[in-house]
Amino acid sequence: MKIFAASLLAALPLPLIAQTTPPDAAAVARLRDAALDDRVAWDLVEGLTSEIGPRLAGSDGERRAREWGLQKLKALGFSNVHIDEFKIDGWVRGVETAEIVGFGSQKLAITALGSSGATPAGGITAEIVRFDGIEALKAAPAGSLKGKIAFVTHRMAPAQDGSSYSAFGPIRFTGPGVAAQKGALAIVIRSVGTDHHRMPHTGLTQFPKAVTPIPAAAMSVPDAELLERLTVRGPVRLHLTLTPKNPGVLTSGQVVGEVPGTDPAAGVVVIGGHLDSWDLGTGAIDDGAGVAITTAAAKRILDSGMRPRRTIRVVWFGSEEIGGGRDGDGYQQSHGADNNVFAAESDFGADRVWQFNAKLPAESAAIKTRLADALGPLGIAPGTGEAHGGSDVEATIAKGASVVDLRQDGTRYFDAHHSPDDTLDRIDRAQLQQNVAAWTAMLAVVANAPEPLGVPRKP
Amino acid sequence: MKIFAASLLAALPLPLIAQTTPPDAAAVARLRDAALDDRVAWDLVEGLTSEIGPRLAGSDGERRAREWGLQKLKALGFSNVHIDEFKIDGWVRGVETAEIVGFGSQKLAITALGSSGATPAGGITAEIVRFDGIEALKAAPAGSLKGKIAFVTHRMAPAQDGSSYSAFGPIRFTGPGVAAQKGALAIVIRSVGTDHHRMPHTGLTQFPKAVTPIPAAAMSVPDAELLERLTVRGPVRLHLTLTPKNPGVLTSGQVVGEVPGTDPAAGVVVIGGHLDSWDLGTGAIDDGAGVAITTAAAKRILDSGMRPRRTIRVVWFGSEEIGGGRDGDGYQQSHGADNNVFAAESDFGADRVWQFNAKLPAESAAIKTRLADALGPLGIAPGTGEAHGGSDVEATIAKGASVVDLRQDGTRYFDAHHSPDDTLDRIDRAQLQQNVAAWTAMLAVVANAPEPLGVPRKP
Repeated sequence: MKIFAASLLAALPLPLIAQTTPPDAAAVARLRDAALDDRVAWDLVEGLTSEIGPRLAGSDGERRAREWGLQKLKALGFSNVHIDEFKIDGWVRGVETAEIVGFGSQKLAITALGSSGATPAGGITAEIVRFDGIEALKAAPAGSLKGKIAFVTHRMAPAQDGSSYSAFGPIRFTGPGVAAQKGALAIVIRSVGTDHHRMPHTGLTQFPKAVTPIPAAAMSVPDAELLERLTVRGPVRLHLTLTPKNPGVLTSGQVVGEVPGTDPAAGVVVIGGHLDSWDLGTGAIDDGAGVAITTAAAKRILDSGMRPRRTIRVVWFGSEEIGGGRDGDGYQQSHGADNNVFAAESDFGADRVWQFNAKLPAESAAIKTRLADALGPLGIAPGTGEAHGGSDVEATIAKGASVVDLRQDGTRYFDAHHSPDDTLDRIDRAQLQQNVAAWTAMLAVVANAPEPLGVPRKP
Repeated sequence: MKIFAASLLAALPLPLIAQTTPPDAAAVARLRDAALDDRVAWDLVEGLTSEIGPRLAGSDGERRAREWGLQKLKALGFSNVHIDEFKIDGWVRGVETAEIVGFGSQKLAITALGSSGATPAGGITAEIVRFDGIEALKAAPAGSLKGKIAFVTHRMAPAQDGSSYSAFGPIRFTGPGVAAQKGALAIVIRSVGTDHHRMPHTGLTQFPKAVTPIPAAAMSVPDAELLERLTVRGPVRLHLTLTPKNPGVLTSGQVVGEVPGTDPAAGVVVIGGHLDSWDLGTGAIDDGAGVAITTAAAKRILDSGMRPRRTIRVVWFGSEEIGGGRDGDGYQQSHGADNNVFAAESDFGADRVWQFNAKLPAESAAIKTRLADALGPLGIAPGTGEAHGGSDVEATIAKGASVVDLRQDGTRYFDAHHSPDDTLDRIDRAQLQQNVAAWTAMLAVVANAPEPLGVPRKP
């Protein structure tokens, strides 16, 4: 009789008993450990980078990637697979060259920043004015850059938590706007990157509304160091040609698939990475990996027989890199009215998860304890910081969704980020599998939690 | 009286007593150890890469580099400083682009190989045929590549002694000629490099005299791996545009300076690196470093007060990369009639010397023992192989000059070799200084050796 009851229990879909009690810790551990042999994530990121490659938002590459994703999610057995299109303001790269003229004459490896203005087709020639950091640029007197090219350099170094991106990133995020306001003809920055290769790192810059965009480019770290050495010797003049264009309104979109839950009232768990990429590389670590990791983890829940309490919605977000939808967040446009009680994104490469942070309702603190137990064997420790999610789930979290950040080791991330080097060979398969295991364990805990998540919906 | 004699000895130029006895080992050790603080080599390679940059043989960059070198060698106090010009058959890069068309459509990072033929301006489109290594290419049936683009890949890995270049280099050296003979429209190879960056590595290829050069390009290692993954899936088509030109006869040249010896009959010790570089990088490790190391070592002998028995001739060789002078070796053209009893070149980067080999007259074996004593404290062990010299001294050695190879650690060398990544930041200052110390010690031993060197000249 006892044996019969156990067999019966094993055969029953777990959620039938798990709606008021958490899933068995041993079952979560088995799912997690099996994921260390995952092949789905590798196959997805290998396929996406090999068969599609660069996927700039609004481009034909991104469109092909959506079609590719639609077929993949269907083939993997997800439910309700569909594409949600939305509109974006496009930006496309043109010619981009730079060379030192006169003393020290040689070519530089540069690339335009997203939303950069354009030079005339024949380029511009001007003297550079060097600034060591964003604060030095901000301190330049008004009008002092008239007729000059601002050159901003720095000493960004790798950090496991990626914090040096927050410290040095503003040189790219806002430096061009500052230089424009000081009257600069153009701006060239040392790439916001931590490698030493002739690879410029692109990325979005944002000009204030009232400011006309100036040509803005990043140069590779070795090229920036060359300029640094030459500025010590005397004046340096650059000839710069950048011809990016704003092609108007373009179509981007997200691909969606679901693992249906047993309790519609418990809300939706939204996870994913972003499908669009910069155009220079193939978008392996940014963010083919995030798409692959989250999809592979959801697939493991789908195949486990442990049908989750809450529906898990996998989203391959669109247009993360060059700015979101022109009518706001693409996900919120299509699914903002759903009961999104939880949202999390993987968008920091493919290296191992080393820490997690969680933002949960106060009455659901037990979830964090269960997460610590489930993630500890993977070498993942509870953090003391806040959980934020990624760009694509910020708006959803702002509306009240709970969130768990599975923080990846970012030491290598900014070596290749936004550069031509963002290719499949940057991904370490064992670390990718550790990510899948972490996401699988996290989903098993969160999607099945008996406790409430997010902001309770009014009926 | 004893003290007076010691002072007198110290004040006398050493060679007056050193023509029949070797220099004092302690004096050699002091010179060697002082060189570990050398700054001359760094300043030379920093200056050459920053103020001149790329120096393709026959280019304006190479001409400016010669003028720059002339001034530097004069300023450093060398004697008989001059430029020897010679003629070369030029080759210049044009447009170079490649993209996969149809399935897997994306752009590839490629560069033309030196002496590559050209496509029409609009490029060519054809299917690729994959070969894993040069032997597989050689085994292709005659005519089997008609209308196709050969794609040759491999798995070159780093090696301290650089031996993997000998093993995999033939894919570049002779692969294009083989493919042309099989009827291929063009050839693309995985770069002969050991990095994983989107940097194609150029380098000379040589077509047999009777064979019309076909377009020949190298792609970056990640791009080659992409093609490998796609060829497993099915046919792959490439659109390839390469428009290099042969501009005819151009002028190259070498810069020469000397440390005069005391014994003209003892012959000349020829050392140096090559001044020309590939056009993609700034020629830091290939071969600004060799120029800098050998010049700095000679400068240390010059400044030591230990005037050498033999004249040390420092040569910044011209046109090593795209083939030597059209009338033969540039050095032999100008100085072939001199009594060149010894010749050595530094042309393998700037990482530490770990081994030395020597080719010396049988009766001068004691020199090798003194070299082992002088180099051992730098971590340099005697090797068991032959000494060969470098490309620029081969002809001089073939005529009978003795040679010492100070073998550098080549583990990192082929990461950047012939690629845009050949920039100053690849050079580790401490290892550069160890090189200067090794060359200084070697020169002190060799230039002052009482034993004969090379082939005795008939009077």
